[in-house]
Amino acid sequence: MSKDDRIEVDYRITGGDPDQIAEAIRVEQTIEFPFDLAPTWIQQEVVGHVRNHNGESVTIAYHAGVAEGGLPQLLNLLWGNVSLFPGVRITDVRLPESILQQFRGPRYGIAGLRARFDAPTRPLLCTAIKPMGSTPSELADMAGTLAHAGFDIIKDDHGLADQPWAAWAERVETVAARVTDAATAAGTNSVYMPSLNVTSDRLAEAATFAKDAGAGALLVLPGICGFDAMRALADNDDLGLPIMAHPSLLGSNVVTPTQGLDHGVLFGTLMRLAGADISIFPNYGGRFSFSTAECLDIKEKCLSPLGSLAAAWPSPGGGMTLDRIGELLDFYGNDVALLIGGALHRGDLATNAAALVERVRNL
Amino acid sequence: MSKDDRIEVDYRITGGDPDQIAEAIRVEQTIEFPFDLAPTWIQQEVVGHVRNHNGESVTIAYHAGVAEGGLPQLLNLLWGNVSLFPGVRITDVRLPESILQQFRGPRYGIAGLRARFDAPTRPLLCTAIKPMGSTPSELADMAGTLAHAGFDIIKDDHGLADQPWAAWAERVETVAARVTDAATAAGTNSVYMPSLNVTSDRLAEAATFAKDAGAGALLVLPGICGFDAMRALADNDDLGLPIMAHPSLLGSNVVTPTQGLDHGVLFGTLMRLAGADISIFPNYGGRFSFSTAECLDIKEKCLSPLGSLAAAWPSPGGGMTLDRIGELLDFYGNDVALLIGGALHRGDLATNAAALVERVRNL
Repeated sequence: MSKDDRIEVDYRITGGDPDQIAEAIRVEQTIEFPFDLAPTWIQQEVVGHVRNHNGESVTIAYHAGVAEGGLPQLLNLLWGNVSLFPGVRITDVRLPESILQQFRGPRYGIAGLRARFDAPTRPLLCTAIKPMGSTPSELADMAGTLAHAGFDIIKDDHGLADQPWAAWAERVETVAARVTDAATAAGTNSVYMPSLNVTSDRLAEAATFAKDAGAGALLVLPGICGFDAMRALADNDDLGLPIMAHPSLLGSNVVTPTQGLDHGVLFGTLMRLAGADISIFPNYGGRFSFSTAECLDIKEKCLSPLGSLAAAWPSPGGGMTLDRIGELLDFYGNDVALLIGGALHRGDLATNAAALVERVRNL
Repeated sequence: MSKDDRIEVDYRITGGDPDQIAEAIRVEQTIEFPFDLAPTWIQQEVVGHVRNHNGESVTIAYHAGVAEGGLPQLLNLLWGNVSLFPGVRITDVRLPESILQQFRGPRYGIAGLRARFDAPTRPLLCTAIKPMGSTPSELADMAGTLAHAGFDIIKDDHGLADQPWAAWAERVETVAARVTDAATAAGTNSVYMPSLNVTSDRLAEAATFAKDAGAGALLVLPGICGFDAMRALADNDDLGLPIMAHPSLLGSNVVTPTQGLDHGVLFGTLMRLAGADISIFPNYGGRFSFSTAECLDIKEKCLSPLGSLAAAWPSPGGGMTLDRIGELLDFYGNDVALLIGGALHRGDLATNAAALVERVRNL
């Protein structure tokens, strides 16, 4: 194996002596066995190698073979048991071509969705139907208004599941039909994106049901269903739909600065490996906690080269308001999927939606 | 809906003004919509209610209907978007009978595995075959020695996947056959438990393959494959095998004391809802960071009443050594699945294994 065939992981170690913890990590993430008892070749080849040790910053290089077995074992190698170490954070990951070529990545990515939505240079416009408690018919009315205005993607609020107020299948059929009708009537490219917030044994079936009902994209919660389940949906040629990833249940992996994964690694690199065309995250200054630097890190990791994998759309959301659009475009540029939900409902939805589409249309 | 049909979640809020953050949470976890714009009945019924506010400790009661749709939406309600809030930690969860009865929980639990392994009062004895890099034949030799000694469960190291040194299917067949032969020859009840560290589209098929090969239990990584995928495996009557849950990738949810979920909620309550018969976690004083109080919390939540769900075996592991057995039994009592791996290999494996079985046999 060439040196280039190593998986390199950069850690920032502040939970104790970086030397000792790095020694623990390189064993923990591989053989989980007393190092001195392992055969010499395993000590040399299978256990990770510490490189570029510089104070708190440590790089460990792992044999690419350790990660064989698909995305589950790659996640396990990166952050499996080490997730239990306080004071350890992954700041970057570099994967060799032998690993990268195992992943298709985003089916559409930036270029594919620009073509799909006839948006050669402008940002994408996404929104959500809500609030929970609304009936399928009420949600469909809302979705119809948004499709008429020309939003690219009209998604379920991620928490919509199979609640008594709007059962999953009825909602998906009702809303998909209304979006299709409204988009056809108005000549827009709008698609409905249901939340695949269903049990694991129904995931593939629900995706097919949604597509057959007319949905044009899928919202997936990889923190709940698992990153590899999202990857399987994205790789499914019979579906072939754009995938948007929601950050539900993933927050604890990023919000403590001394522990977890850097924001870009999780919401950029890992989401792309798992096939997300669009990666939602809470924008700075919204109702969550991400900083401008963390949001830039996500943008960078969504867009920067990663083997032959397509770039993904960063999608800042979470309490976005209409008057911040200019600032968001200055910050992210045009390769961004704007996600504006509740704020559209303050005043008249149709008026607000039309104004936003007009604002973005010719960028 | 009666007051008893609410889901109550206890939070400790230290990331800002508890009043303001509780107001944000009760909306964030339900309607994700400007509260003042929601219809009155949705404000009253669908949005959570703040109860028992006492300084940093806040309870929010949610309509049970919000969690309809299975374990994915229950997880989403408990810790979906709130996982993105620094300074918020869930300290307890109380589920109404209407929710609990939707979950089968552990198929075997404490009583079922006591019967399965002819262990009416003693702790269970579990171990792992390792290190990664070993061939299927080498792992089978090790497993045979452990089955001869009479370990109840002989599991794959969780990181064993489909690596070049031991491909998944060959390893499972080879080790399962050896454990079956050794247990039959020695008259022990030992079972082999492969790690279902495979891609999501192969999970069910791999479980069936393992059972057909003679495996007697399954190791599942819910942090990677998703809690509901584990639940589906546990609920599968055609499999009907005991399930052990591994904490891989879950650590960031617990290790920061001011953020995440309390250890017992994650490794006790949620693991039982998701069907784990045995819940592995890092023991205090091992190579990880859990405190004695955190380990007691896990034990308590594994064993305490939870509707009609069976109790699960707490399984402290992670660098356990032979000389700590007495201390572990004093601490956990006999309802514990001891997990001792690498330390058995210091000296002669057969001798160490026999000594450990003898130590535990008549407890």
